[in-house]
Amino acid sequence: MTRAVLTPQAEDFPAWYQDVVARAELAENGPARGSMVVRPWGYAIWELLQADMDRRIKGTGALNAAFPLFVPMSFLEKEKQHVEGFSPELAVVTHGGGEQLAEPLVVRPTSETVVNHYFARWVQSHRDLPLMLNLWNNVVRWELRPRLFLRTTEFLWQEGHTVHATYAEAVEETRRMLEVYRRFMEETLAISVAVGEKSAGERFAGADQTFTCEALMRDGKALQMGTSHNLGHNFARAFDIRYSDADGVSRHAATTSWGTSTRMIGGMIMVHGDDHGLRLPPAVAPHQVVILQIDAQQGTADAARHLEAELSGLGVRTHLDARTHTSFGRRSVDWELKGVPVRIELGARELTSGRATLVRRDDRSKSAVPLDGAARAAAALLDEIQRALFAASRRFREEHTVPVTDLDEFARRVADGGLFLAAWSGTEESERILRERTGATIRCLVDADPPAPTCLVTGLPAAHTVLIGRAY
Amino acid sequence: MTRAVLTPQAEDFPAWYQDVVARAELAENGPARGSMVVRPWGYAIWELLQADMDRRIKGTGALNAAFPLFVPMSFLEKEKQHVEGFSPELAVVTHGGGEQLAEPLVVRPTSETVVNHYFARWVQSHRDLPLMLNLWNNVVRWELRPRLFLRTTEFLWQEGHTVHATYAEAVEETRRMLEVYRRFMEETLAISVAVGEKSAGERFAGADQTFTCEALMRDGKALQMGTSHNLGHNFARAFDIRYSDADGVSRHAATTSWGTSTRMIGGMIMVHGDDHGLRLPPAVAPHQVVILQIDAQQGTADAARHLEAELSGLGVRTHLDARTHTSFGRRSVDWELKGVPVRIELGARELTSGRATLVRRDDRSKSAVPLDGAARAAAALLDEIQRALFAASRRFREEHTVPVTDLDEFARRVADGGLFLAAWSGTEESERILRERTGATIRCLVDADPPAPTCLVTGLPAAHTVLIGRAY
Repeated sequence: MTRAVLTPQAEDFPAWYQDVVARAELAENGPARGSMVVRPWGYAIWELLQADMDRRIKGTGALNAAFPLFVPMSFLEKEKQHVEGFSPELAVVTHGGGEQLAEPLVVRPTSETVVNHYFARWVQSHRDLPLMLNLWNNVVRWELRPRLFLRTTEFLWQEGHTVHATYAEAVEETRRMLEVYRRFMEETLAISVAVGEKSAGERFAGADQTFTCEALMRDGKALQMGTSHNLGHNFARAFDIRYSDADGVSRHAATTSWGTSTRMIGGMIMVHGDDHGLRLPPAVAPHQVVILQIDAQQGTADAARHLEAELSGLGVRTHLDARTHTSFGRRSVDWELKGVPVRIELGARELTSGRATLVRRDDRSKSAVPLDGAARAAAALLDEIQRALFAASRRFREEHTVPVTDLDEFARRVADGGLFLAAWSGTEESERILRERTGATIRCLVDADPPAPTCLVTGLPAAHTVLIGRAY
Repeated sequence: MTRAVLTPQAEDFPAWYQDVVARAELAENGPARGSMVVRPWGYAIWELLQADMDRRIKGTGALNAAFPLFVPMSFLEKEKQHVEGFSPELAVVTHGGGEQLAEPLVVRPTSETVVNHYFARWVQSHRDLPLMLNLWNNVVRWELRPRLFLRTTEFLWQEGHTVHATYAEAVEETRRMLEVYRRFMEETLAISVAVGEKSAGERFAGADQTFTCEALMRDGKALQMGTSHNLGHNFARAFDIRYSDADGVSRHAATTSWGTSTRMIGGMIMVHGDDHGLRLPPAVAPHQVVILQIDAQQGTADAARHLEAELSGLGVRTHLDARTHTSFGRRSVDWELKGVPVRIELGARELTSGRATLVRRDDRSKSAVPLDGAARAAAALLDEIQRALFAASRRFREEHTVPVTDLDEFARRVADGGLFLAAWSGTEESERILRERTGATIRCLVDADPPAPTCLVTGLPAAHTVLIGRAY
C-alpha cells in the first residue's frame, strides 16, 4: 500500500481521528445533530469495556438497577447548583401520546435527582446503609460542538450512586471508586492517567468534591476519562434522605456518584492509535488474533481452521478471515485499521516452510514461528502487547508532563500540548484568567510539591500543585 | 407466618401481581406516569435473561450495535403504515439546549426507520448481505394504562434488524428468530408458549407478517412474550435499500425485525408465581441457592461458609444469608417472596444431627440431607426445578386450551380465562366483532385443523385455525 488510508496524525490530528473512527467502522454521526450510531466493531469494544468495568464495580458491593429516562423538571430543581449546572444542556419532552404534558419531562442528563428521591424512600435505618447502586444507561446533554465518542448529545455510560451513614464514608467511597477507575484505565485500557481532585470551577454541579482520571492524548491534549463525586449532604438534604442511627437518632445521610462513558473509547483511540489506525489493547479487542488465510487451497483452509480451534482452546478471541476473494493487502490494511493486536498470516508458502508469520499491531514487527507453536506464541504476545501499550502511554505522559513557573512562557508553550505542573493560589479569578489567556484549564490538583512558591497566574502564595493543559 | 404477605391470587390477581412486584423488590413506579424503577433484584433477573438471550442471538450471526434515542419525525413518516401505527404513542422532544428545535425529535418507539436509513448506506453489494444487527436499548411508547413490566411508557428490550437479498430469506430469518425466542421461553424462562402468525389486525405497523410467542398466565389471560416481523420490501422501498446482485443488477433488499423486552419478567411472574411470591426458574435466578444461617454460633457460621464455597465451586450462584439479627421466619418469607429456587437451612440443630434441611421453592417440600452431600443435592435440585416449572407451565397451557365452535358459548366462557381454538374466516370485520362482543383477541394463527368448518364469528367458511383469548 502506498497511499495512506488515513490523514497522518502529524498533519491534522482531528482529521486523523475522524478518519479512523469512520474507516475502522467504529461509529457514524446519527441523523439528529450530536447523536451517534455505534457500529458493531465499536460496540463490541464497548461490550468488553462494560463487562470488565461491571465486574470491578460489582466487586465493590454495588448492585445494578435501572431508573427512568424521563425526569420531572421539578426533581432537577430541588438541588440548586445541580439545576443551574445542567439547565443549558437539557433536552425536554413537552408532548406525549399526542397531548401537551402538564409538566415537561427532562431527558436525564444524569440521574442524581431521581435516584436520591428513591434513596429517601428506601433508606430508613443505619442497617440499610451503605446502599450502593450502579446504572448502565444512556443520557442526553445538548452539545454545541459534538464529536464522536468524545462529546455526543446522547452517550452510553455507567453512573454509580451510593448512600452512606457519614460524610467520611462518602469521601472514602468517592476515593475507592476513583481507584477502581484508575486501575481499569491502566490495566484494561492500557492508559496511564493522572488522578486528583478537580478545582471548584470544574466540579460536578452539586458536588462538594470531584475527583478525576486525566489521560494525555497523542496530540498533547488532555481527556477526562472518568469522575467520582463526593456529594456530601447536598442531595441528602435536597431529597431528605434520613436514617435512624444505632441510638435511634434521625440523621441525614451522605451520598456519592461516579461515572465513566463511551468517551473512554475516544480516549483509547487517541492514546494508542497511529497512522495505520487503531491499536487495541488485547483486553478489549473483539478479535485478539485474526488468522489471515491467504489462499483458498484445501490445505491452507484446514490449517487455518486447526489454528483457530487451537487459539480458541487457549481462551483467545480468534477470528478466521477466509475471504480469499478479497486481496490479501486490503484485508491486512483493514485489520490494522481495526487495531487487532495480532495477525497470523497463513498460506501455501507458510505450510511448505512449516512457519507462520506473526504480525504485532503495536510495533508492526513480523516474525516467523513454527506452525505447531503459533497458537501459543500468539497467545503469549497478547500479554506483551497489553504491557507495551501501557508502558508507551505512561512514558508519553511522563515525558509530556513538565513544570512551569512563568505564565508568559506557559502561554507560548501550551499550544504544543502536554500537561504542565504549576503552583496555584486556588482563586476562581485565577482559573478564569488562565482559561481566557491560554485556552488551558486546571485538569486536577495533584499530590506533589509546587514547582514555585507563588501562583503561576496571580503571584499569590501557592495553595496547591495543579496539572494544567488544553483538553477535549 | 399466619398473616398472608400477598393478596391471594384467587382473590384478586392484579392485586397479587402488584404485591409481589413490590414485596419481592422487583420494581416500583417511576416519578413520571408509566415509568419504572427496576430494583436490584429485578435488574439482576434482567441481566441473566439478557446474557442468555444475547448468546442465542449472537449464535445466529447477528452483531450488537447502538442507534440513537432521538429520531427525526421525518424518518418515521417515510413508511406510511409505520407512522400511522406509532403516532398515538410518541413522546416528542421540542426543546434542546435551551432552544426550540427546528424539527421535533421523537424518542424512539422502535428503531426500524433509523436502522433502515443506515442499512441503505452500508449495503451496496450482495456480498454485504445478510446484514444482521441487534440493539439492547430503551424505547418509549406512551401508555394510558401502565403496569409494571407488562406495559410501561419506557421499557428495556432488544430489537433485531436484518437485511437480506431475497424475500424468501427474510421469511426464513423471521421464522428462525421466532424459533430462537420459543426455545428461550421454554428452556430459560421455563414457560410453554404457543407460536404462530398474528392476524392482519394485530400485525406490527409496516410488516407483511408478524409472528408471536404467546404464553398463558395463571389468571387465564394471554401475554405476548416476543414477536418477529417479516418487513418484506416495505422498509427497503421506503429507505431505498438496494444492492447489486451477482450479475450486477440493482435490487431492493428485504428486511426483518424482532424483539423481546422486560415484559418477559412480567410473564415469568404471572406464569410461575404463587401465593407465597415469585418462583424463579433456576436459569434466571440471581441466587440459585440461599444458605439460611439460623444462628450466630461459630460452628454454624463456619459450616455455612464451607457450604457456600462448595456450592460456588459447583458453579451454583449462591448467597449466604448470615443476618442472624433478623428472625429466621422473616428471612424465610423474604427468600420465598423473591423466588429463590432452593434454600438450605443450617443451624446448631442441623450440625448436631449432621443433616441440613433443603427446601424447594417450587413445591415447598423439605428434605433432610447429609451435610457433606448438601451442596451436590442442592445443585441437582436446580435442574429438577427448572424442568418441573416448565412441565407445570405446559400442563397448565394445555389444560386451558380448548376448542370452541359457538360464539355465545365462547362469550360465556371467555371470562374464565384460557385459550380457545377456533375456526376463523380471516376477515377484519370478524376480528372487530370478536373484540367488541367478548373482549378477546386473536392471539395467533396455529397450524392445526379447525374445530369447525365455519368461522366462529361470521359463519363464513373457515380459512384458519386460531387461538383466541383475553390478553394483557
